[in-house]
Amino acid sequence: VSHPFHSFLGTPASIAAFSENAILSHMLAFEAALAQAQAEYGLIPRVAAATIAEHCKVERYDVPALVAQSQRAGSVAIPLVNALRAMCGPVAADVHKFATSQDVIDTAMACATREVWRLIDTELSTLIAALLMRAAQHAASPLLARTLMQPAAPTTVGFKLVTWATPLVRSQRRLRALASDALAVQWGGAAGTAGATTPHAAAITQHMAHTLRLSAPDTCWHVARDAWIALGCEVGVLVGALGKIAKDISLHAQAEVAEFAEPDEPGRGGSSAMPHKRNPVGAMVALAAAYRAPQQVATLLATLPHEHERALGAWQAELATWPDLWITAHASVSAMASTCAGLAVNAARARQNLEIYAGVIYTGELDALCAPIAAATRQRCKVLASAD
Amino acid sequence: VSHPFHSFLGTPASIAAFSENAILSHMLAFEAALAQAQAEYGLIPRVAAATIAEHCKVERYDVPALVAQSQRAGSVAIPLVNALRAMCGPVAADVHKFATSQDVIDTAMACATREVWRLIDTELSTLIAALLMRAAQHAASPLLARTLMQPAAPTTVGFKLVTWATPLVRSQRRLRALASDALAVQWGGAAGTAGATTPHAAAITQHMAHTLRLSAPDTCWHVARDAWIALGCEVGVLVGALGKIAKDISLHAQAEVAEFAEPDEPGRGGSSAMPHKRNPVGAMVALAAAYRAPQQVATLLATLPHEHERALGAWQAELATWPDLWITAHASVSAMASTCAGLAVNAARARQNLEIYAGVIYTGELDALCAPIAAATRQRCKVLASAD
Amino acid sequence: VSHPFHSFLGTPASIAAFSENAILSHMLAFEAALAQAQAEYGLIPRVAAATIAEHCKVERYDVPALVAQSQRAGSVAIPLVNALRAMCGPVAADVHKFATSQDVIDTAMACATREVWRLIDTELSTLIAALLMRAAQHAASPLLARTLMQPAAPTTVGFKLVTWATPLVRSQRRLRALASDALAVQWGGAAGTAGATTPHAAAITQHMAHTLRLSAPDTCWHVARDAWIALGCEVGVLVGALGKIAKDISLHAQAEVAEFAEPDEPGRGGSSAMPHKRNPVGAMVALAAAYRAPQQVATLLATLPHEHERALGAWQAELATWPDLWITAHASVSAMASTCAGLAVNAARARQNLEIYAGVIYTGELDALCAPIAAATRQRCKVLASAD
Amino acid sequence: VSHPFHSFLGTPASIAAFSENAILSHMLAFEAALAQAQAEYGLIPRVAAATIAEHCKVERYDVPALVAQSQRAGSVAIPLVNALRAMCGPVAADVHKFATSQDVIDTAMACATREVWRLIDTELSTLIAALLMRAAQHAASPLLARTLMQPAAPTTVGFKLVTWATPLVRSQRRLRALASDALAVQWGGAAGTAGATTPHAAAITQHMAHTLRLSAPDTCWHVARDAWIALGCEVGVLVGALGKIAKDISLHAQAEVAEFAEPDEPGRGGSSAMPHKRNPVGAMVALAAAYRAPQQVATLLATLPHEHERALGAWQAELATWPDLWITAHASVSAMASTCAGLAVNAARARQNLEIYAGVIYTGELDALCAPIAAATRQRCKVLASAD
Repeated sequence: VSHPFHSFLGTPASIAAFSENAILSHMLAFEAALAQAQAEYGLIPRVAAATIAEHCKVERYDVPALVAQSQRAGSVAIPLVNALRAMCGPVAADVHKFATSQDVIDTAMACATREVWRLIDTELSTLIAALLMRAAQHAASPLLARTLMQPAAPTTVGFKLVTWATPLVRSQRRLRALASDALAVQWGGAAGTAGATTPHAAAITQHMAHTLRLSAPDTCWHVARDAWIALGCEVGVLVGALGKIAKDISLHAQAEVAEFAEPDEPGRGGSSAMPHKRNPVGAMVALAAAYRAPQQVATLLATLPHEHERALGAWQAELATWPDLWITAHASVSAMASTCAGLAVNAARARQNLEIYAGVIYTGELDALCAPIAAATRQRCKVLASAD
Repeated sequence: VSHPFHSFLGTPASIAAFSENAILSHMLAFEAALAQAQAEYGLIPRVAAATIAEHCKVERYDVPALVAQSQRAGSVAIPLVNALRAMCGPVAADVHKFATSQDVIDTAMACATREVWRLIDTELSTLIAALLMRAAQHAASPLLARTLMQPAAPTTVGFKLVTWATPLVRSQRRLRALASDALAVQWGGAAGTAGATTPHAAAITQHMAHTLRLSAPDTCWHVARDAWIALGCEVGVLVGALGKIAKDISLHAQAEVAEFAEPDEPGRGGSSAMPHKRNPVGAMVALAAAYRAPQQVATLLATLPHEHERALGAWQAELATWPDLWITAHASVSAMASTCAGLAVNAARARQNLEIYAGVIYTGELDALCAPIAAATRQRCKVLASAD
Repeated sequence: VSHPFHSFLGTPASIAAFSENAILSHMLAFEAALAQAQAEYGLIPRVAAATIAEHCKVERYDVPALVAQSQRAGSVAIPLVNALRAMCGPVAADVHKFATSQDVIDTAMACATREVWRLIDTELSTLIAALLMRAAQHAASPLLARTLMQPAAPTTVGFKLVTWATPLVRSQRRLRALASDALAVQWGGAAGTAGATTPHAAAITQHMAHTLRLSAPDTCWHVARDAWIALGCEVGVLVGALGKIAKDISLHAQAEVAEFAEPDEPGRGGSSAMPHKRNPVGAMVALAAAYRAPQQVATLLATLPHEHERALGAWQAELATWPDLWITAHASVSAMASTCAGLAVNAARARQNLEIYAGVIYTGELDALCAPIAAATRQRCKVLASAD
Repeated sequence: VSHPFHSFLGTPASIAAFSENAILSHMLAFEAALAQAQAEYGLIPRVAAATIAEHCKVERYDVPALVAQSQRAGSVAIPLVNALRAMCGPVAADVHKFATSQDVIDTAMACATREVWRLIDTELSTLIAALLMRAAQHAASPLLARTLMQPAAPTTVGFKLVTWATPLVRSQRRLRALASDALAVQWGGAAGTAGATTPHAAAITQHMAHTLRLSAPDTCWHVARDAWIALGCEVGVLVGALGKIAKDISLHAQAEVAEFAEPDEPGRGGSSAMPHKRNPVGAMVALAAAYRAPQQVATLLATLPHEHERALGAWQAELATWPDLWITAHASVSAMASTCAGLAVNAARARQNLEIYAGVIYTGELDALCAPIAAATRQRCKVLASAD
């Protein structure tokens, strides 16, 4: 149950990746992985681990009922672990052993995030490739640069597009590095010390990391969430870089400017009142994301000062905000990928809009003026294309 | 489909009020009300209005399918109006006549908001009554005031509780005034001028307002959203005032302080790792809300500079943020209402914690010192109790 | 000492109103008013009050040196009160009697805020008058409405301008009501109970309120800051409404649209690189404010959950954020007032841009179509003009 | 001229680094470096470069007067360049050649930021060293871990301190990497293409980078500000990590807990009302920063969608927000460095507070339980100490 604007500005894939079902499924995967790791190091019997793993299947649980108990319990882990223990009968005491709510929830969030990060990474590659291809095509097409919303000087379409692509390439790279740090198993136990599983704590973390395809961090990150939040910040930077593209498209696509247009497809960008309309709905999604993401990041940053060994309110606010940021980001990059793949460039109109300013903002022959800009564009396209 | 932390920090009633089903139901109610109003003023035939009203029942539509088309269309109104027109056959042209997407969506949002505002208003009254009752009981119970997190001077439990209640009473009053302005029919048509329905525009607005139990505004508020956003800001102020109560409860409930405690109920505030735990989960919900609401308000404010007669991105970002703010607020006030109704006050411990500072922060007999504070508390309780 | 962008996006008058000198001057005014009120009710000798008042002149103090001690002391009130006591010699003990840092600082902030609010209120009246005058002039001038950044339907220049003015009129009214509540004397003493001055607490508050031309609140608002922050929120709403005007001006002033232009004055909106440029610098200031104010408001809201009887960090963060919000707002309203007073409307071009769409977005004679919009504009101008 | 809370929550060094004088001085350094680079590549005569460099001394200019002209001009670069040209007489045309306002202002901001980043880096090293030293001392001192503000399980003082230090070490490392990318010369000219200086654009950038001790970026970053804003985000993460330390100190320093205390120094953390008070003013500064920085970062992110080749409002809002974030951050790290250097740990009291829970949250001998935590602490201290 969600409001209609969640889907409106999200994507089915990213919404599914953070759904109640998906998160509880990852939580059960954590419990199974923990039991296996603990069995490996003799902390619980192997047969108990097998029994637990057998019951770690989300379809065996009434997910909405468990979620409905979460607020009163203080954590969705409590009803889920209770339900799993009830399933496991005689080995109930080996379920979630030495673990705490935050271990299972943070790890599940890392698993879900990894999926959405990969979706984003793939779409980013598509978008970058589309921009570079088109930038190369239009490397030399003259375009009026505008500063402070007023005519400035000649540039080229290709130079503009490669300037859009540059932050995306860098952001993709930063996201990969940060994801590799931050998408990590959480293993700390009640106080974050992993004390009860000494001297096997690091080995258990690594075993789970291998099973769950996450990183194995040096230490528990219950309250040391800098890497996690730094990853979230970079998502915010990416949404801003995508918003810049959308803002420019919306300006170039104005009827009076008419230099760029979003793809013209049936059912896309109509109007309930005006049949002639062709609204830039790709830009709409990316701009809406750019209005929301800065504040989603701010909430994440505001939660960093956790109290003591687990926060009251801050961690929970982070959990509720995190999926929305990623869903927003995936919607934005998807919208820009499909928009830029079909972006219509009216090079003739662009040239015409610029030539009005011959003698005012430039003198001499336009193509000659644009030649070095075209050369720089082509050079930059090559550098960026080889960056992946 | 939503992430598990939506319910965790929300309430079933407020989530339902903004659900896809509820919003589309309100949108259909708008279309029916519009048709009736237009029939009243001769803009469409009465029989067409009756046919339209007949089909304005949400159960006749595949809501998820309509929502799924919204992003590509650029608005959920477009697929819904198309579906309604398909239902209405020969009178299709009288459906949504002279209207625009924003008319129907904004009005539907006003209807949903009215419901959640009423839920909040009711819970606020409950919470205020609980605080005033308990404040009167403990008007004279000595309590150590703390400033900058250090012991300061004597106060009383009742004085603290009435100080918590004071902003709630004022916020409830401001919310009522703002809701009466902001929960208004939207009627502007394609350009916000309502031009096509002249000279009946105001009458149509009033007719719809009467049917839908909303206010009839002086003018269309497509891009003049100050009253709407001012209402959202006051929700943010309320969440902050509730967060103050939660913060204090969490501090007084620390084991070393032990002056207040949240209600002790089965299944409430346990731990997946530590059976002895009694976590202040009411405070948790209200504090989580207080971490999130400021940024939700910031997003609303950031969307105010709409472009021209309807924004690209800003309006849509507002739509997606608005329900979350209200759901957050309802969860917070509900959590504080149930927590404060059962708040355990350990007056003996509070006195003992204060008496340590005899001769340091106060001299003389404690009860005598507290008498004027108790009197002020009782006086203030009376004033606030009569404010509703 | 401040960075150059403080003045760049501020105004000399609002910056001066919150300067170190101004705030410390208001703090001294509080101390004088407190001494007089306490003398009136026999809490200190009249002669002591006279001596104190004599020394409450900011030019007698080394303001930068006092401010430099504030961080270490934890409050600028501590070094200032120490300095004042040193001046007062034998009556030192009657200085700041029963008062706390927050009393003097909050009251001083209310005094400074009142000044800037009045500056804003005056500029708002000027701006509204300019918009209404021009709206009346251009009530019937046809203009293309744009939605989602695409051509939509006919409107008029006047209708657009009166739609800009409407939220300003309402915001001015809300600001006046909120300012009357929030610009209040702070009087609570160490624990916010004003206990030590019982039974004269209310009388002392009223006496000071009269002297300082502030409101006398029902109770101390140390930690019940809802009215104060609600006032700040409304400033955020105002900045958003001003940003909407600026956004539209920047779009209409694009070279390819050329319907509106900012005033052309020597030294205004040039370029260090391009002599032909005429940058819309009024819009720039108001848009920059609209990027900043939402987050300034969010910070204010985030500080609401004060701990106990005075916050550690939250109150201080509020103090540092508050002036910037008001300075930003005054710069925005001043920029829009001077811009709109000289706004150049190219009605011929506006008509021409619209007539391109004859047969597409409208049919028939344009002036006839616009007549009801013009009538609505004139009517609305009258209503708003009489609102002040 | 600034409000008193700027200094209250800032540091003299960071405020000076972004002062009007400092920024204009860096701007002049840019103009001198540009002239020298252009002379090197034959774009202006060497003698012109020498003349220009001679006049690039901030003390020759009336800085407040230039800043006062900046709003109307639309940029502080315009009056400064005009003044410099007036000084340079016959070579005026060689001043600021092919450059634009954004080149000189962004470069000056990078220079100022480098200074503050170095101040922060140095203080961070001091703070980390203090924490690791004290963590090693108290590696085995038992301490009650608290989760959701309730007693949880045993940990040690050293483990807590090394957990505080861990994010600081990582943040310092991320800041260094990001600073090396982001603290770069800006060189793009009117349209960001650096077209007029082809084929010497890259060489000129490198020459200036060498002179000004900044990085030489691959391309102009006028509107591709991802690296710059990513650096700002990491400052926000750092402030959050420092806020976590401050939050914990404020909780441990409560009178009823009394496990940690801030240093006791004359003039530190007193009260204007209560002589006995010892307020945790270091924590106050860092917590105030943690309330403000998230929103400062949000503003930076919100400005990313620049319009076209230079934004109207967004860039300017970024300029005004950037210094405040860095000043806030330097104040926070300085406050925590001095606080943690003198942090008083009451290990006996910490043990006593924990021993109350023998048999409830732990069984057996406390020191034996803590031994593996102590070992992990010592190991972690070594790893972190070698990270620098």
